[in-house]
Amino acid sequence: MERVAIVGVGLIGGSFALALRKAGFAGEIRGVGSAATLAAAEARGAIDRGATLEEAAGWADLLYLAQPVGRIISTLRLLEPWVRQEALVTDAGSTKRVIADTAYEHLTRCLFLGGHPMAGKESRGAENADAELFRGRPYVLTPEDSVDLERPAVREFRGWLERIGAREVGMSAEEHDRVVALSSHLPQLASTALAATLAGEELLAGPGLIDATRLALSSYEVWRDILATNADAITVALNAYIQRLENLRENLRTREAQEEFRRGADVAAKLRTR
Amino acid sequence: MERVAIVGVGLIGGSFALALRKAGFAGEIRGVGSAATLAAAEARGAIDRGATLEEAAGWADLLYLAQPVGRIISTLRLLEPWVRQEALVTDAGSTKRVIADTAYEHLTRCLFLGGHPMAGKESRGAENADAELFRGRPYVLTPEDSVDLERPAVREFRGWLERIGAREVGMSAEEHDRVVALSSHLPQLASTALAATLAGEELLAGPGLIDATRLALSSYEVWRDILATNADAITVALNAYIQRLENLRENLRTREAQEEFRRGADVAAKLRTR
Repeated sequence: MERVAIVGVGLIGGSFALALRKAGFAGEIRGVGSAATLAAAEARGAIDRGATLEEAAGWADLLYLAQPVGRIISTLRLLEPWVRQEALVTDAGSTKRVIADTAYEHLTRCLFLGGHPMAGKESRGAENADAELFRGRPYVLTPEDSVDLERPAVREFRGWLERIGAREVGMSAEEHDRVVALSSHLPQLASTALAATLAGEELLAGPGLIDATRLALSSYEVWRDILATNADAITVALNAYIQRLENLRENLRTREAQEEFRRGADVAAKLRTR
Repeated sequence: MERVAIVGVGLIGGSFALALRKAGFAGEIRGVGSAATLAAAEARGAIDRGATLEEAAGWADLLYLAQPVGRIISTLRLLEPWVRQEALVTDAGSTKRVIADTAYEHLTRCLFLGGHPMAGKESRGAENADAELFRGRPYVLTPEDSVDLERPAVREFRGWLERIGAREVGMSAEEHDRVVALSSHLPQLASTALAATLAGEELLAGPGLIDATRLALSSYEVWRDILATNADAITVALNAYIQRLENLRENLRTREAQEEFRRGADVAAKLRTR
């Protein structure tokens, strides 16, 4: 792996580039994106130079797609005539099944491996990129066939993931989408709906309400593609959550509420010990 | 106001006593509670000595009930034969309608004023009492008749609230219960139900899930009385929340989700600028 192209050099793409450099990657890193994005990424030292998608695809050993999910899907539909057969195409999109389906339909000349680094921060853009962003965080890989993990280009990529401090986690694309629907998408919608319920109401806000509405600050721009490409798993998660709320509503004065508090406290405590 | 009795000298009662002292209260403060509680409160310098409820009630100018809601209700049922006619009885309970109903039914010989300091912290007990706990925080008073606010004993009590830095907010008991159902009880149940939904599931937890499940760590012991004495307002709040969630579920791919994110982000941002 000597030539890396980062498509979408924002917080994740820029951080991946900086992390590679810090871990000793000595090859060239090119970025694909808008002029402003590329200027910020170059200023941050994340990329050596910009390129068009066609140039980058015809040149790179590793194509790292770090755009929003909808843009990754558009990119995957364009790559086939340009990519090198030896290249590995991977992505960092927040949902995996729709991306994988698109890749396996449109990209037959080279290897594709879906990925999702469970890392981020509130401030976006290459100007906030951080070589340590992935350290200690799970990095999900969703190979269609586990044999793919042993192919030379993938082994090399996984070696770099280890060197940048990421904790590799393997699962199927379906399993990933189900797990993030519960771990990430449901908490987001629970917080958004909670804050929206309070619109126009007189409130006496304590620290608990501040915590519970923090995710509601998230921008819809980040979430549109996620909701659209994981609607089935999110619907299942929302249904389970609504059922829990209805159960609490029916049991405000019974011991079942005590059981629910115990269940919730156990999960919340476990999340804090990992 | 020369003789203050704190019934239930935990975090709130102990902090109120310490705050009075710091604000220059020169009278005597007695505590009512278990031997262990009184020992902790005395060690912390919150009370001068302990007393039985009967002794304290027959002695105090101000009876400050800082127990859990259910215990406040039990106390109010006992006071009538003991209290002095000039005394003011007030409470710091988390719900107000049921407490006020009990007070007006059982306590006719002296004045009662419901209250709720919107202050607290995770660590409980007099050993964690803090003279600054109420500073800058809302302190809700729920007079049955606004004329009560001008009675001499109440004016004096309100003067001390001002001196300890609390921000007095007046509203009816019903309005209070409705506002805290939305501001405090709904966020608690939303977080508890969210965490309980995740029980037994494989998770990939990020900082968002940690925030969203923080309230779920709360103990049911604190919540049992609140849920039981505010069930109607909580049911209304839960219904509104469930409706929002169902609306999101039906609109994961439409512009309505965008509207809901905007509404939620507006509320969350406003909560942070107050």
